Amino acid sequence: MTQQDKIRVGIFGGSGYGGSELLRILLFHPQVELVFVTANEQAGKPIGEVHRNLHGLTQLNFIAAPEKLEGIDCVFLALPHGQAMEIVPRLPPDVKAIDLSGDFRLREQSIFEKHYKQPHTAMHAQAEFVYGLTETNREAVKSARLIANPGCFATATLLGLAPLVANNLLSGRVVVDAKTGSSGSGAKAAANTHHPQRMNSFYAYKPFTHQHVPEIEQELDHIGDWTSELIFMTHSLPVSRGIFASIYAEANREITEDELRTIYADYYRESFFVRLVSGSPDINWVKTSNFCDLGFAARGRQIVVFSAIDNLVKGAAGQAVQNMNLMFGLDETTGLKLVGTNP
Amino acid sequence: MTQQDKIRVGIFGGSGYGGSELLRILLFHPQVELVFVTANEQAGKPIGEVHRNLHGLTQLNFIAAPEKLEGIDCVFLALPHGQAMEIVPRLPPDVKAIDLSGDFRLREQSIFEKHYKQPHTAMHAQAEFVYGLTETNREAVKSARLIANPGCFATATLLGLAPLVANNLLSGRVVVDAKTGSSGSGAKAAANTHHPQRMNSFYAYKPFTHQHVPEIEQELDHIGDWTSELIFMTHSLPVSRGIFASIYAEANREITEDELRTIYADYYRESFFVRLVSGSPDINWVKTSNFCDLGFAARGRQIVVFSAIDNLVKGAAGQAVQNMNLMFGLDETTGLKLVGTNP
Amino acid sequence: MTQQDKIRVGIFGGSGYGGSELLRILLFHPQVELVFVTANEQAGKPIGEVHRNLHGLTQLNFIAAPEKLEGIDCVFLALPHGQAMEIVPRLPPDVKAIDLSGDFRLREQSIFEKHYKQPHTAMHAQAEFVYGLTETNREAVKSARLIANPGCFATATLLGLAPLVANNLLSGRVVVDAKTGSSGSGAKAAANTHHPQRMNSFYAYKPFTHQHVPEIEQELDHIGDWTSELIFMTHSLPVSRGIFASIYAEANREITEDELRTIYADYYRESFFVRLVSGSPDINWVKTSNFCDLGFAARGRQIVVFSAIDNLVKGAAGQAVQNMNLMFGLDETTGLKLVGTNP
Amino acid sequence: MTQQDKIRVGIFGGSGYGGSELLRILLFHPQVELVFVTANEQAGKPIGEVHRNLHGLTQLNFIAAPEKLEGIDCVFLALPHGQAMEIVPRLPPDVKAIDLSGDFRLREQSIFEKHYKQPHTAMHAQAEFVYGLTETNREAVKSARLIANPGCFATATLLGLAPLVANNLLSGRVVVDAKTGSSGSGAKAAANTHHPQRMNSFYAYKPFTHQHVPEIEQELDHIGDWTSELIFMTHSLPVSRGIFASIYAEANREITEDELRTIYADYYRESFFVRLVSGSPDINWVKTSNFCDLGFAARGRQIVVFSAIDNLVKGAAGQAVQNMNLMFGLDETTGLKLVGTNP
Repeated sequence: MTQQDKIRVGIFGGSGYGGSELLRILLFHPQVELVFVTANEQAGKPIGEVHRNLHGLTQLNFIAAPEKLEGIDCVFLALPHGQAMEIVPRLPPDVKAIDLSGDFRLREQSIFEKHYKQPHTAMHAQAEFVYGLTETNREAVKSARLIANPGCFATATLLGLAPLVANNLLSGRVVVDAKTGSSGSGAKAAANTHHPQRMNSFYAYKPFTHQHVPEIEQELDHIGDWTSELIFMTHSLPVSRGIFASIYAEANREITEDELRTIYADYYRESFFVRLVSGSPDINWVKTSNFCDLGFAARGRQIVVFSAIDNLVKGAAGQAVQNMNLMFGLDETTGLKLVGTNP
Repeated sequence: MTQQDKIRVGIFGGSGYGGSELLRILLFHPQVELVFVTANEQAGKPIGEVHRNLHGLTQLNFIAAPEKLEGIDCVFLALPHGQAMEIVPRLPPDVKAIDLSGDFRLREQSIFEKHYKQPHTAMHAQAEFVYGLTETNREAVKSARLIANPGCFATATLLGLAPLVANNLLSGRVVVDAKTGSSGSGAKAAANTHHPQRMNSFYAYKPFTHQHVPEIEQELDHIGDWTSELIFMTHSLPVSRGIFASIYAEANREITEDELRTIYADYYRESFFVRLVSGSPDINWVKTSNFCDLGFAARGRQIVVFSAIDNLVKGAAGQAVQNMNLMFGLDETTGLKLVGTNP
Repeated sequence: MTQQDKIRVGIFGGSGYGGSELLRILLFHPQVELVFVTANEQAGKPIGEVHRNLHGLTQLNFIAAPEKLEGIDCVFLALPHGQAMEIVPRLPPDVKAIDLSGDFRLREQSIFEKHYKQPHTAMHAQAEFVYGLTETNREAVKSARLIANPGCFATATLLGLAPLVANNLLSGRVVVDAKTGSSGSGAKAAANTHHPQRMNSFYAYKPFTHQHVPEIEQELDHIGDWTSELIFMTHSLPVSRGIFASIYAEANREITEDELRTIYADYYRESFFVRLVSGSPDINWVKTSNFCDLGFAARGRQIVVFSAIDNLVKGAAGQAVQNMNLMFGLDETTGLKLVGTNP
Repeated sequence: MTQQDKIRVGIFGGSGYGGSELLRILLFHPQVELVFVTANEQAGKPIGEVHRNLHGLTQLNFIAAPEKLEGIDCVFLALPHGQAMEIVPRLPPDVKAIDLSGDFRLREQSIFEKHYKQPHTAMHAQAEFVYGLTETNREAVKSARLIANPGCFATATLLGLAPLVANNLLSGRVVVDAKTGSSGSGAKAAANTHHPQRMNSFYAYKPFTHQHVPEIEQELDHIGDWTSELIFMTHSLPVSRGIFASIYAEANREITEDELRTIYADYYRESFFVRLVSGSPDINWVKTSNFCDLGFAARGRQIVVFSAIDNLVKGAAGQAVQNMNLMFGLDETTGLKLVGTNP
C-alpha cells in the first residue's frame, strides 16, 4: 500500500482521553495517514505538549475544527455528547464517520432525549448508522458509512451476554454489576476523580438509570429474542483504566461451565479480540489492549459471566479503529495488536 | 471504673491484621487492661516493632501462647482458621472468648469441613457459641460466654439483607456482588497481593463457593424466613481496606426507596454503627471506622442495597470489641468511636 | 474539667482538608467545646454531609463567618492564604488564634509578598505571632496569643534539621528532596490531582521556589547559627496523605549514625510526637497520626536524615491542636494520641 | 528482510518482569525471530498462561534451559544475579549476548563481590563486555559481542549526569535522590511489595550502599573526568512502574537553565530516546515506553536535573533491545517505538 492508498483520517476532538487513544493507535497504524486533529481550546499547540506520552513521536499540531473536509476518507468524532449531531449532517457523502459519543446509538429520539437530557437535532441521520459492536455486527460494519461506536459499559456487557441471548438460553432477569476506572469520567478534573479521595474509594452511581442501558437493550433485541429484565448498576473503581462487568443470569435449563465455554467459543470463533479465560478475567490483563476477556462459572441454572475490557480501547478508540478497518476492507486487527503489559 | 474494675484481656494472634486492629482499639479502650498478646514467631519483640504505627504508644512485647490463663476475663482469638478449636475447649469456664476465625460460626460439622477443608475437632463446643453479628443478635450477645465473630463479607451482606428478610419482603433469588480490599488476604505477602499487579487489578474469585456463604444462609434463616437462593460472588479491589457489597433482590411487591428507608431506619433504630446514607455509600467514608453504611435504590419490585464496611473493623476487630462491650455490660460504642478521615 | 471549663473553640474554614482534620480532632478532644465552624459555601449544611466520615458523629451545621465572637477562647483559621490577615486584626484581644495559612509565618513583608504573590495588609500584627513548630518553640508557644502554624513541608524539614543546626554540626549546602501526597493540594479538584493521571505519576514542581523555603530558613536561623545554602525541591507522590523529606547534609566532622541518634534523642527528649526509628521511616506508619518519624544514615561527613509526617496532621491540624494544648496549659498530647493503622 | 534474515533470538529467564518485557518487545520486533524462551519452573507452559497479557498473541511455550544453542544469533539473559556467569563462558563464540543482570557490569572483582555478596566465577569473561548504556557507548555497542545491560537506577542517573560530566561542569559532591516503582523488586511477592502496605507507603532503603553505585561511578569515570563524591539514595514509590531521579549538582561556574538545555540538547542530538522536557518530567509520561525524559532547573551554581524512565523498559528490556539493534546493524529504534498512554 503506498502513501496514496492510505486511508486519510481526521479526528474531531483530540484532547480528551478518547482522542488521546485514537492518536496512540492511528499515528502508528500502517494504513492510515492522519491528516488533522481538532481541539478547539488547544488549537495551534503541538499534540505532544498536551499528550506528553506522544512527545517526540509526532510533529502534528492541534487545529480548530475545519470548515471543509477535502481529501478525507474517514473522520472520528471523539466529542462530548451532543456535538456529533451538529457535524454529521454536514459531512460530504463520501466521507465515512465513526462517532464515539452517544449521539447516534439510539433509534428512538424520545429515549435519547430522556437519557442524555438534551434535544436531538439530527435524528433523520440516525437511520444510516450501524451500531459498531464489531463482534455482533461485523457484516453490517463492513458496508457501513456511519458507525455509532458503542459505549464502554455497553461493550463489556453485550460481549458477555451476546452468546446467551443468541442461543436463547436465558430466563428471568439479568443482573449486571459493572465497575469502571476513573478515566471513564474523562480528562477533565472533577470532584469524583479527585485523587486524595478516589484512591481509597469504591461506590455505586446512577442506579437503574445509566445512559448505556437503552443501547444495551436495543442491541440485545437485535442479537436475539431478548425478553428479560435488565438490572444494570455502575460503580467506580480506584484504577485509571478498565471495566469489569459481573453478569448474573439464569438459564432456562441446567448448564455447566464446559457447555458455556463451548457456546462462547463457537460464537466468538472469528473474533480475535475476544479471549476466553479460565477462572476470572482481570482488568490488569487487558489494560491498554483491545481485548475483551471473558470467564464464566455455573451452578445449576445459575450463570455468571465476567467481562473485562480497557474502557478506552475496546470500550472506545480501539473498537472505533477495528470498525474503520472493516469499513475499508482491512483485516480488523490491523494496527490494533496493542500489547498489554505485565505488570 | 478503677484499674481493678477493668476488663482484663488477652489476645491470641497479635501479629496479623486482625490482631493489629484489636491492638489499635484495645490499647486505648477506657475499660480494658490489655494483659498479653501472643505471636509465636514474634515472641519477645516489642509490639511497636511489628506494628510500627504503634511505636511509642505501648511498651508491651509479644509473648508465646501462655500455658495457663490467670486473672483474665476475656480472650480474643485472632488466629488462622483451625487454631481456635484447639484453644477453646481448654479455656477456664470463667473466661469469655471472642473468636474472629471461622472455626465456630457454622452449626453443621459437615458444612464446616466442606468449606474449610479440614476436620473439626471441637464441634461439641460450637453449641455454646453465639454468632456475633451485633445488630441482629444483640440480646444473645449480652449473655454469651463465647462469640463466633462473623466473617467480613458476611457482615456486609447480612447487614444489608437483614431488614428485608426480617420483614418478609423477598421473593426469588438474591444476587450479592461483593468486593474486598487487599487486607482481606491477611498480612502475609502472596501472589494475589503483589503490588505491581494488584494496583491495576480487579477480578473475581471463588465463584459460588466462598466459605462465608453458609454462615450467611444460616444467619438469614435465623433472622427470618429465608427461602431464596443466594448467588454470592467475591471480587478483589485494589484498595487496602474496605468491603462493598451490591445486593440485588426482588421484593414480593412494588416498593419505593422511601419505604425501604423507613424499613431500614426502623430495623436499625438502636444501632449506632449502621448509618443510612442517601445515594451510594463509599468505602472511603467508612475506612478505619466501625460503621456500616447502607444505601438503596428501587424500581418496581427490584431492589438494590449497597453496603460498605471496613473489613478489618466492622468486619473483624471492631465488631469483636462491640461484642465484648455488650458481654461485659458496657455501651456497645465504648472505645469504638473510631473516626474515619477525609480524605 | 467541667463543661464550663472547656476551651470554647471556633473554626474558620471548615470545609477544606485542614478544617476536616481539625474537626476529626476537636470534636473528640476531651477539653474542647466546639462552638462553631464556618464554611461560606456550605453554610447551613450538616458537617456530616460534607465530611461524610463524620456522619453520625456530630449534629453541628456549618455557618457563615460570624460578625462577632462572643464567649470564644480560641479560633483556628484554616482558610486560603490571604484571608487570615483580614480576620486577625479584628479579633477581640482575649481570643487566642492559630492560623494554619502562610499569612503570618514570615517576618519580612517583602519576602511574604514575593512568595505568596499578594500584598500583606496586616503586617503590624505579625510581630505578635509565634511560629508554631512546637518542638523548637515550646516555651514561646505556651505564652503565645497568636500562632503561625508551620507549613507541612517546613515541619518535616525543620524537625529533621533542627538538631543538626542547634548543635552547630553543619558545613556546606543542604539538599532537601521533599515529596508530598495529593491531599497537600487541598480539597478542590484540579488537573494535578486528576486521579487517572495522578495514580501513576511522580514529578517535581516549583524547583528552588517553594513558598515554604523562607519560613524554613527563618526558623533555622532562630534555632541556631544557620549559614548553609538550602536547596529545597518539592515533588508529588501518588498517595493521599504523607510527606517524606530526604535531607542531605554535610557535617563539619566525621560522624556516625550512633552519634546522630544520641544527638537527636537528646534534642527530642521531651517530644512525644517525634519518634526515632531504625532504618528509614515510612509514611505508611505515620499516616493519620501526629507523629514525625525520623531516621538517619551517615558515611564519613555525609549525613542523610529521613523525615516522615502526615501532612494534614503533624503538618497542619494536629500540630495546631498541639499548640492550642500548650497555650491553654494542657499536656501537649491531649486529644492527639491519634493512632495510625496497620495496614 | 526475509524470515531467513531475521535475528534468531533466545531468552534465558522469561518468567520474571525483565523477561516479560523482553517478550512484549521481541515477539513483535520486525527483525527478530524468537526461537526459545526458558523458564525452568514454568517449562512446558504456554507463555500466555504466565504472562496473561500475551494470551492470544503467541503460541510459544516456555522451555527448560537448552543444552546446546544451534542456529541462534543472540541471547538475552534475564536471570537473577549470579546465573549469567554460569552461562556466558559456555556460549558459542558466534552467539552474541546481552545480560540484564549485574554479573558483568563491574570491572573489579572485589567490588562485584562486595556489592553482590557472592563470588564471581567468570571474571575472565568480563573484559569482553561493553557497558550497554546506549547513549554514552553507542559506537562500542555496535561492535560488541557481549553487553552488560545497565541497572535501572544507573540508567536514570547516568543519563541525567552524563552531559555535565562530559562537559567538565561539576564541582563538589553530587546528591542523587532516586525513587523506584514496586516492579523493581521483581515478580515474586515479598513483604516490601505487599499491596495493603505498599499502596500507602514511601520509604528509603539501602542508604549509601545500593549495588548500582559502583557501576554509576565506573561509567562516570569513563564518560569524563569524574572526581566528585556521589551521595546516592534509593526510595520506594507506590506505583508499579517508573524511576524518577532528582540529581543535585554544583557547577564550577554560574549557569542558567537555558545553557543547560543547550548542553543537553547537544549531547543527546543523536539520541531518539532521550527527550528534554520543560519543567519536570513525570513517570506517567514514560511508563511502558523506552524514553528517558530529562528536565532541569538552575540557580546560581546550583543545578538540579530530573530524570524519569520506565525501570523495566529503558531501565532493562527496552535498552537491551536497543543494544541488540545496534549490534546487528539496525536502527536503534527498530521495534522500540513503544507508545506510552495518556492516561
